[in-house]
Amino acid sequence: MKSYRKEVWINLPARRGFLNITPQVEACVRESGIQEGLVLVNAMHITASVFINDDEHGLHRDFEKWLEELAPEQPHSRYQHNLTGEDNADAHLKRQVMGREVVVALTQSRLDFGTWEQIFYGEFDGQRRKRVLVKIIGE
Amino acid sequence: MKSYRKEVWINLPARRGFLNITPQVEACVRESGIQEGLVLVNAMHITASVFINDDEHGLHRDFEKWLEELAPEQPHSRYQHNLTGEDNADAHLKRQVMGREVVVALTQSRLDFGTWEQIFYGEFDGQRRKRVLVKIIGE
Amino acid sequence: MKSYRKEVWINLPARRGFLNITPQVEACVRESGIQEGLVLVNAMHITASVFINDDEHGLHRDFEKWLEELAPEQPHSRYQHNLTGEDNADAHLKRQVMGREVVVALTQSRLDFGTWEQIFYGEFDGQRRKRVLVKIIGE
Repeated sequence: MKSYRKEVWINLPARRGFLNITPQVEACVRESGIQEGLVLVNAMHITASVFINDDEHGLHRDFEKWLEELAPEQPHSRYQHNLTGEDNADAHLKRQVMGREVVVALTQSRLDFGTWEQIFYGEFDGQRRKRVLVKIIGE
Repeated sequence: MKSYRKEVWINLPARRGFLNITPQVEACVRESGIQEGLVLVNAMHITASVFINDDEHGLHRDFEKWLEELAPEQPHSRYQHNLTGEDNADAHLKRQVMGREVVVALTQSRLDFGTWEQIFYGEFDGQRRKRVLVKIIGE
Repeated sequence: MKSYRKEVWINLPARRGFLNITPQVEACVRESGIQEGLVLVNAMHITASVFINDDEHGLHRDFEKWLEELAPEQPHSRYQHNLTGEDNADAHLKRQVMGREVVVALTQSRLDFGTWEQIFYGEFDGQRRKRVLVKIIGE
C-alpha cells in the first residue's frame, strides 16, 4: 500500500466564499502515482467545508443565501460561542450543513467522478490563510 | 491491496424518493471477495444523496416534508441557479443536508453495521437514469 | 495492508448531548500500530452522529438550540415516524445535519488534524448504551 499527503493552502478575500479546488486535488493524484484507492479531502479548520457540488455561480449565491437563512451570522450575540470573544459561531454551524470532508474513489489514476462533480472549499470565516488536507491511500 | 468498482444504475419514477440500496452494496461486497477494508458508496450526481438511516416509510415521509421546509422546490424563481434554465436548485441544497456519500467498514466480508443501519439512495431530481458508485479497497 | 476494528461504548445521561471521543480514537490508533492510512469513526446508531468541530461548551449549546429549531423534538405528533410508537423522529433528522461518520487521515501514527479539530459523539436519543465503530486500514 502506498500513501500520499499534502496540505493545500487557501486564502479567500471575503468572510465567506467558495473555491473550486478540483485542479489542486487532481495535481495531488498525479503526484502521488497511486492508481487505485481512496482520496480524502478535508478542511483542517472547523469553520470551513470541503464538499462536492456544481461549479455554477448562481448556485453558489443560492448556497450563500440559504446558509444565512439556516444559520445567520448576525446578530453575533445570538450565539453563546461568541461570548468567548469569537464572532464566528455561525461559521461552525454552516460547516456542519456543508460537511467537513469528501472521500473520492481513485480509479485508473483519476478521480472517479460523475459528469458534474467538482470539489469545493467552502469558507465561512475567511480573510486569512487556511489549509485543506489531501490524503491518498492505495496502490 | 485489492480494489473493486461498480456503478449501480437507478431510475426513480418521481422527482423525489428514497431507495434502500443495501442489497446492491452487499452484492458488490460479495463479488469483490475483499474481507477487510473500506466501502465507499457515493452518488455520482449532484442532485442526489447516499446516506444511512432507518428503513421506515413514515420517516421517509418526514424527510420529504422536512427537506421541503428547509429548501423548498417552489417557486423555482427563488433560486438564481434556476435562471440558467434549470429547475433543480432545491435538489442541490437538499443533497447537502443528506450528504453525498457514506464510508462503511468492511469486516469479515460483511458491511460492519449497527442493528438498524441501511444504505439509501436519496433522489431529489429524478425520472431519469442515474448512477451510484461503489468502490471497495482492502484485502 | 493492516486493519483494526474496535467498538467504543457510550451512555449519555440525557436525551441529547455531545461527548469528545478524541482520546478514545487516539487510543485505537496507538493500539492498531498502523502508521499511515485512514481512520473511519461512525455512529452505529441512526439517532446519533460522529462529527468534527470545536470543544467549546457555548458552541455545543448553540448546536443544541439550532438543531431544535431545524428539527424540533416536540410535539412528537408532528412526525409520521412517531406513529410507529417511537418518539425519536427528530433524532433521525438531527443526525442527518450533523452527519454519521468522519474519515480522518492517519499520518506518522497520529490523527492528522488541524489545530482545533476534535471528534465528537452527538447523541439525540440517549439514556442507553450505544456504540461507535472505529475502523482503521493502512500500514
